[in-house]
Amino acid sequence: MGVILSGNKMTKNDLIDCHERIKPFIHNTPVLTSKLINDLTEADIYFKCENFQKMGAFKMRGAANAILKLSDEQKNNGIVTHSSGNHGQALSLAAKKIGIKAYIVMPSNAPEIKKAAVKSYGGQLIECESNLIAREEAARTIVNSQGATFIHPSNNEDVILGQGTACKELIEEYGSFDYILVPVGGGGLIAGTALAVKYFANKSMVIGTEPFESDDAYRSLLSGKIESNTTTNTIADGLRSQLGDKNFPIIQKEVKSIIRIKEEEIIESMKLIWQHLKIICEPSCSLPLAGIIKNKEQFLGKKIGIIITGGNVDLKNLPF
Amino acid sequence: MGVILSGNKMTKNDLIDCHERIKPFIHNTPVLTSKLINDLTEADIYFKCENFQKMGAFKMRGAANAILKLSDEQKNNGIVTHSSGNHGQALSLAAKKIGIKAYIVMPSNAPEIKKAAVKSYGGQLIECESNLIAREEAARTIVNSQGATFIHPSNNEDVILGQGTACKELIEEYGSFDYILVPVGGGGLIAGTALAVKYFANKSMVIGTEPFESDDAYRSLLSGKIESNTTTNTIADGLRSQLGDKNFPIIQKEVKSIIRIKEEEIIESMKLIWQHLKIICEPSCSLPLAGIIKNKEQFLGKKIGIIITGGNVDLKNLPF
Repeated sequence: MGVILSGNKMTKNDLIDCHERIKPFIHNTPVLTSKLINDLTEADIYFKCENFQKMGAFKMRGAANAILKLSDEQKNNGIVTHSSGNHGQALSLAAKKIGIKAYIVMPSNAPEIKKAAVKSYGGQLIECESNLIAREEAARTIVNSQGATFIHPSNNEDVILGQGTACKELIEEYGSFDYILVPVGGGGLIAGTALAVKYFANKSMVIGTEPFESDDAYRSLLSGKIESNTTTNTIADGLRSQLGDKNFPIIQKEVKSIIRIKEEEIIESMKLIWQHLKIICEPSCSLPLAGIIKNKEQFLGKKIGIIITGGNVDLKNLPF
Repeated sequence: MGVILSGNKMTKNDLIDCHERIKPFIHNTPVLTSKLINDLTEADIYFKCENFQKMGAFKMRGAANAILKLSDEQKNNGIVTHSSGNHGQALSLAAKKIGIKAYIVMPSNAPEIKKAAVKSYGGQLIECESNLIAREEAARTIVNSQGATFIHPSNNEDVILGQGTACKELIEEYGSFDYILVPVGGGGLIAGTALAVKYFANKSMVIGTEPFESDDAYRSLLSGKIESNTTTNTIADGLRSQLGDKNFPIIQKEVKSIIRIKEEEIIESMKLIWQHLKIICEPSCSLPLAGIIKNKEQFLGKKIGIIITGGNVDLKNLPF
């Protein structure tokens, strides 16, 4: 029963209010199409380019919403999170704009460009080992010592609502879709997207895409409970995290299926996007297109929306 | 006197007619800004993203206009050009759309991605040595044997008018500018841009940017006559060509100055654009930003338009 309540807490009005609240802090990002990619897939694909979002990723949306909803007392003590990168940057920038302190726990093997960005946005970086337990422990230490509010990268209703505004904008500009495809990491984007679709384009079907090397969402949908990742050995560094109890019920209820993608398919699809859309995007962004290419029959002739999630790539470390 | 006549042939109405003629064949490309780049330069910069143009470069504009203005008899015999790449691709695609034949002469050391693209667009590729004499001779052979019409990449009034429509769109969307900066290769883009500014935003100043390694325009403006390149040893492969008698008079009359850029400045600026604008652009595109960075005082606080000329980069061969 907790499952249904959790999903029901986030109403259509909550999503509308969230969007109005964060508008001064975000871009309504452009949508691109590519004739060559449409020819290749024989589909009609619209890429919502959150790589052009402030600080370079959709995470700015959820971060801004979560901070704006804090009480004055909470704001005084600052916020803390653990993040493989973009959520930490987003909180750093949003916190700076609102004039509060941000403590960012990051795995020491995160891309250098992401660490540097957190610092440039004024966040205080705390490095830890690259596993969930180490991250959570480091964050808890800050909560206890500083009284900071923990803002989870994906398992937080205000974050989920914020992430959903990207798809809301896409629907507002281009109407309904046959399918909306997004990558799945911690589950915040896909849960928010599913809510936007449910409230604004309920004929559309939401499909997740996930690396074989970090397939907790795929297995969780099969088993009906939250499963852990057995490996996180994927180039898609934004997708190494796992689902939580706030977003899983929404995913379970609203998401049609999850397509798993191989590492070489991620790289090939990333190259296609760079070459034909002429944009810089992270490996994580390329899973939805890879899913369309590998399941071509399912998507033939369909109108499809894809969220290009971020563009914070270390240019010295490209996979091609 | 020929100088003035040549410039005067292309009227405001010619530019308006050209734009209407080519609209079905081109995108009105998006304009991007970057807070980080504005902070760095302390200027207000608008990037007109012709890397998102059809076939990936502004050259589609001039190519479409030049082909659309051919007589039926000329169309029957096809067209021929020599090009370091994008003009050849653009003519191939425009010719295919109009159903005529395109013969494309290219230097054998042109990027592989550009050769492959010409073929994929249906153009017939003819390779030659990497110098102007070899290119012109190969093109002349096709004119004589096939009766094809030669369409020069930059020294052609219909091409110049077509290229000017990018700046016309930028002005239509964002009003007047203090400065418009473009790279200078063969002179088609800067001449067209100068006409667009003259007719639609005559308070703006047009400034060219050119590699030290291919500085014919800089020296031509100094000497008052068309000078040859002494080297073309620049990474900016789109800028190795030189001015012609159709565009030089316009440049002489309408362009305020040319800023020369070093190779390392090109690469550094290209990296900034990739990292902060999150777009794929060619080395040639990065000269205007490099010019602003190296002459920072001149551009402090100014509203500046830049044409990002193209995005056809060989991703296997990046300079960083």
